[in-house]
Amino acid sequence: MPTRADINYFGAGPALLPTEVLEDAAKALVNYNDTGLGIAEHSHRSEIATTIINEAKADLASYLDIPDNYEILFMQGGGSGEFSATAYNLVGAWVARKHKELGSEDSSAEKLKSAVKNLKLDYIITGGWSKKAAAEAERLFGSEHVNIVADSRKSNDGKFGTIPEESTWNLSKDAAMVYYCDNETVDGVEFPQFPKSLEPKGDDGPIVVADMSSNILSRKIPIQNFSAIFFGAQKNLGSTGITVVIIKKSLLPQPSVALMKQLGLPIPPRILEYEAIAKSNSLYNTLSIFDVYIAGRVLKKLLQQYPDKVQGQQAVSESKAQLIYSALEAHPSVYKIVPDKTVRSRMNICFRIQGSDAAEQNFLKQAATLGLTGLKGHRDVGGIRASNYNSVSVDGAKKLASFIGTFASQGGNQ
Amino acid sequence: MPTRADINYFGAGPALLPTEVLEDAAKALVNYNDTGLGIAEHSHRSEIATTIINEAKADLASYLDIPDNYEILFMQGGGSGEFSATAYNLVGAWVARKHKELGSEDSSAEKLKSAVKNLKLDYIITGGWSKKAAAEAERLFGSEHVNIVADSRKSNDGKFGTIPEESTWNLSKDAAMVYYCDNETVDGVEFPQFPKSLEPKGDDGPIVVADMSSNILSRKIPIQNFSAIFFGAQKNLGSTGITVVIIKKSLLPQPSVALMKQLGLPIPPRILEYEAIAKSNSLYNTLSIFDVYIAGRVLKKLLQQYPDKVQGQQAVSESKAQLIYSALEAHPSVYKIVPDKTVRSRMNICFRIQGSDAAEQNFLKQAATLGLTGLKGHRDVGGIRASNYNSVSVDGAKKLASFIGTFASQGGNQ
Repeated sequence: MPTRADINYFGAGPALLPTEVLEDAAKALVNYNDTGLGIAEHSHRSEIATTIINEAKADLASYLDIPDNYEILFMQGGGSGEFSATAYNLVGAWVARKHKELGSEDSSAEKLKSAVKNLKLDYIITGGWSKKAAAEAERLFGSEHVNIVADSRKSNDGKFGTIPEESTWNLSKDAAMVYYCDNETVDGVEFPQFPKSLEPKGDDGPIVVADMSSNILSRKIPIQNFSAIFFGAQKNLGSTGITVVIIKKSLLPQPSVALMKQLGLPIPPRILEYEAIAKSNSLYNTLSIFDVYIAGRVLKKLLQQYPDKVQGQQAVSESKAQLIYSALEAHPSVYKIVPDKTVRSRMNICFRIQGSDAAEQNFLKQAATLGLTGLKGHRDVGGIRASNYNSVSVDGAKKLASFIGTFASQGGNQ
Repeated sequence: MPTRADINYFGAGPALLPTEVLEDAAKALVNYNDTGLGIAEHSHRSEIATTIINEAKADLASYLDIPDNYEILFMQGGGSGEFSATAYNLVGAWVARKHKELGSEDSSAEKLKSAVKNLKLDYIITGGWSKKAAAEAERLFGSEHVNIVADSRKSNDGKFGTIPEESTWNLSKDAAMVYYCDNETVDGVEFPQFPKSLEPKGDDGPIVVADMSSNILSRKIPIQNFSAIFFGAQKNLGSTGITVVIIKKSLLPQPSVALMKQLGLPIPPRILEYEAIAKSNSLYNTLSIFDVYIAGRVLKKLLQQYPDKVQGQQAVSESKAQLIYSALEAHPSVYKIVPDKTVRSRMNICFRIQGSDAAEQNFLKQAATLGLTGLKGHRDVGGIRASNYNSVSVDGAKKLASFIGTFASQGGNQ
């Protein structure tokens, strides 16, 4: 009968939540702040809910240093909802911009149509999630409008695990967006920093969209370089059920439905339209206030814990990852780290045990007896994956590093 | 400092949850079944999660008597997501059927195109929710494809509160779907039973879609009459965050994206595609297992409480509604019930207090001092609304009925 203290969980998500947040949430679920009603029962349009939403937004903005010209949205549908939503909405914003540039004279209609023929959505493919996002864009907009900037499988035997050199990237000239996934969970590949070639140039605003579902709140982000950033809450922020979008306010307005249809472009279902969600302060439809409450509690805790905000968490994340990678590197004959050293994820540490599948089974089994769980690799690739999200403690990382050493020294892979 | 026992909450949703379910959920949140991990932390792909999902599906099927040729899906996005999703998916199913009927010869392509010119989505508008659903269909498919079968405002001074006679309905001949909202929460209008004219005829399958977000699990439903039924969990089933779809399995397969585009028809973003959700047993993307767990606990409780399943709950729902309506009817000079008597909702009891706005304020204030809360009418229409969902106890309904009597006798509206 293990308690929470007995378990160090390294699952890829949903992730651990801080025990004190869960204990508070448990109380709030039954009777929130002595109101006689639980937090999941209070109306999403009550003052209580509005306060929870606005505080969570303000605390996220403070922790990540999000400037005022960006809006924060709470939505549903996770990363898979958002990779569709970013494509719909940023193509809309691109059309709105073109439309404004060309003016509304009769002759402009043809010019706009011809501009749309060259519409491009750029995708950098470095793992399973960016691959899925690009496939969805092809499905919604047609492959003629999707440009694969780079695909790390091309120079790596069809496998993920690298990020192609920026000098080889094939960026479009006037893309509606450039999409990438900042941390790929399946193969453990993370962008070491914001790509140089995607920095906004001159007067042109940013056009970059990033999926940060698995590494948000773990390092400083140059927000002004992005059109939009999104992430599911369930890894570093809170519980499954809400998805957060940080989007530049000037990109919210959408062209008329009539114009989009005339141009042969798809429009989002209303629940994926950022403009509608922003106008209603994330209450276009019923939002899970319980999930926003949990996220809010996690943020308060992080703000309290790290006076220098996300940079404080960044130092901890890096040192935890370093502990585990060093333990693996100390035994190169036993462990093979999956991705290239330069693009190793701090969040999902993927490795194989040299020898046999049985050795990996043995590793998982022995780890579990020590309370080190959730270590099985993604079903598509196998192997071992230690997910090192914010709620994994330094102590937990140390225990795993120590076990990695012991397993190797004792010839666990024999 | 009220406890849960002090409060009888009549809010329109999210609604009350049974206290014992919340108490169990509070424990599960911290440490689920002594696993050392909370229920929101376990992977949605774990055996624990699969068991929770499959049991909730089986219990829902048992409680509502859902036949084997229907699939149950857990999704995100609420009613507003689903009124978009039903339109996308049922138009897809309609095209798939036409395509099959016409065969794949070259000459069929033109016939299919011409059939699509006559594509109709039928909407019966009886309140704010069906109105929004029809507007979304017009937005996605174009108003030429949306047929308003009936609109209760037309014969009622522009206001909702009635359901037009079936004999006046203008149903399309070969609609892809006929959509209605079984219970409208804003004005308190509920279909008294399944509409005669929508019953499936001869060999033709059903084409009816109903939004049952606000009255599911409160009465027996003739499932076989429906293509699809959907509802958010947060009123009668569980907590905000999951949405349930009950859909006839034969309607799941969608035509190719290429065919839909050729026909100029929109396709759903992948997260709203029923076929994808069904194939993955509702795990196409990360599902909130916490919310499915809560729904599952509520269902277990209902199954235990009512040996004759939903019919048992139906009797209770009706008697609770009767208590409140009778109290209102006893004082016709004080209370004006909003909808027509024949279409009064058992779930949302909407009434005005004759006299002044101040009298309504007074009613709300006095009610609150007795722990009768959540009674304020929807912001679009004002007045009083007592939402009488499953978790409102008979005792709670009695207390409200008694207060309605006292307020009137004491001349509370003077």
